[in-house]
Amino acid sequence: MTACWITLEGGDGAGKTTQAALLEEWLAEAGHTVVRTREPGGTEVGLLLREIVLHHRGEVTDRTEALLYAADRAQHVATVVRPALGRGEIVIQDRYLDSSVAYQGAGRVLGREEVRNLSLWAAEGLLPDLTVLLDLDPDAARSRLDADDKPFDRLESERHDFHRRVRAEFLVLAEAEPERFLVLDASRPVDELAAAVRERVTVLLP
Amino acid sequence: MTACWITLEGGDGAGKTTQAALLEEWLAEAGHTVVRTREPGGTEVGLLLREIVLHHRGEVTDRTEALLYAADRAQHVATVVRPALGRGEIVIQDRYLDSSVAYQGAGRVLGREEVRNLSLWAAEGLLPDLTVLLDLDPDAARSRLDADDKPFDRLESERHDFHRRVRAEFLVLAEAEPERFLVLDASRPVDELAAAVRERVTVLLP
Repeated sequence: MTACWITLEGGDGAGKTTQAALLEEWLAEAGHTVVRTREPGGTEVGLLLREIVLHHRGEVTDRTEALLYAADRAQHVATVVRPALGRGEIVIQDRYLDSSVAYQGAGRVLGREEVRNLSLWAAEGLLPDLTVLLDLDPDAARSRLDADDKPFDRLESERHDFHRRVRAEFLVLAEAEPERFLVLDASRPVDELAAAVRERVTVLLP
Repeated sequence: MTACWITLEGGDGAGKTTQAALLEEWLAEAGHTVVRTREPGGTEVGLLLREIVLHHRGEVTDRTEALLYAADRAQHVATVVRPALGRGEIVIQDRYLDSSVAYQGAGRVLGREEVRNLSLWAAEGLLPDLTVLLDLDPDAARSRLDADDKPFDRLESERHDFHRRVRAEFLVLAEAEPERFLVLDASRPVDELAAAVRERVTVLLP
């Protein structure tokens, strides 16, 4: 029974999925039960919402977008995260409320406090034990995404200044909660980053 | 240029659609440009959300439901209602934020102020010029719905005490804002109700 909730944050292309997979593998080998999940889209309803916020071709207003992320979060926390933690499992999650504050609060300029309060209401106040912020210059992240063959989604295709605001906001959030955040320079080699994550997670587990 | 926004509220089976149609016909005959719309589902994104909140077969948590209605509202107010009012048109709308306060705030017991604030944030504070509340005893409403052949949606199929809380909350809301609300006994004949609505709308128009 080592319930623990770890979220990974950062811009697209920062390496969150890679680090989540490495951490999951390491924890599973050590005998832990791990639930790997993500927002948006960690539930059946969430997959429908993810399709709208990331791929809808028509207009989606900024407030609609923020509310859809919050709806996804409410469903995910209540039906996936809380039950897993209640069973004493470890939850590794790609993106959580810090992403909403960074992308909708700062990127869309809806306001830090308003978007944060919306997410906290959705999640009934639940916060992770650890948030790993993979910090990367938006230009470097863009190069990594360009190397992929996938078309950009609605948020990836936003302009440069949007992504600069998002990055800056993540760093402000990390500075405000140093005990929850581990900030890593995502331009470092993958295995070094993985080792740094493991080191911090080790402290959390009995 | 007689921009005016009229919403119709009340339980399912109270006759909102009938009264909206009669009012639209009367206003159009008088030469007004009328936009008739509804929540949820008054936009392309809203139709996707309506499908989830009313017809999703799996679990939808109470907060998810409230946030989906708010997302639908944000999209609808920004892309349909505000533009129509800006063009000087008359908007007749089936359900608005009072429904959220009644159904999610009281019915789901999420709290009046919290749900109202969520909706006001979604709509950037916009409130109708007139809200017609068609008040009907839930038992009478149920008889009308039973007479229809349509299967019940997620909210219609809620239990009796849920619908009693919803009705009571609508009446509390109307009492708190007597200038915005016109409360009508929905068991009265259709033409009498339509005449009462027209009388009040006449006062609003130049």
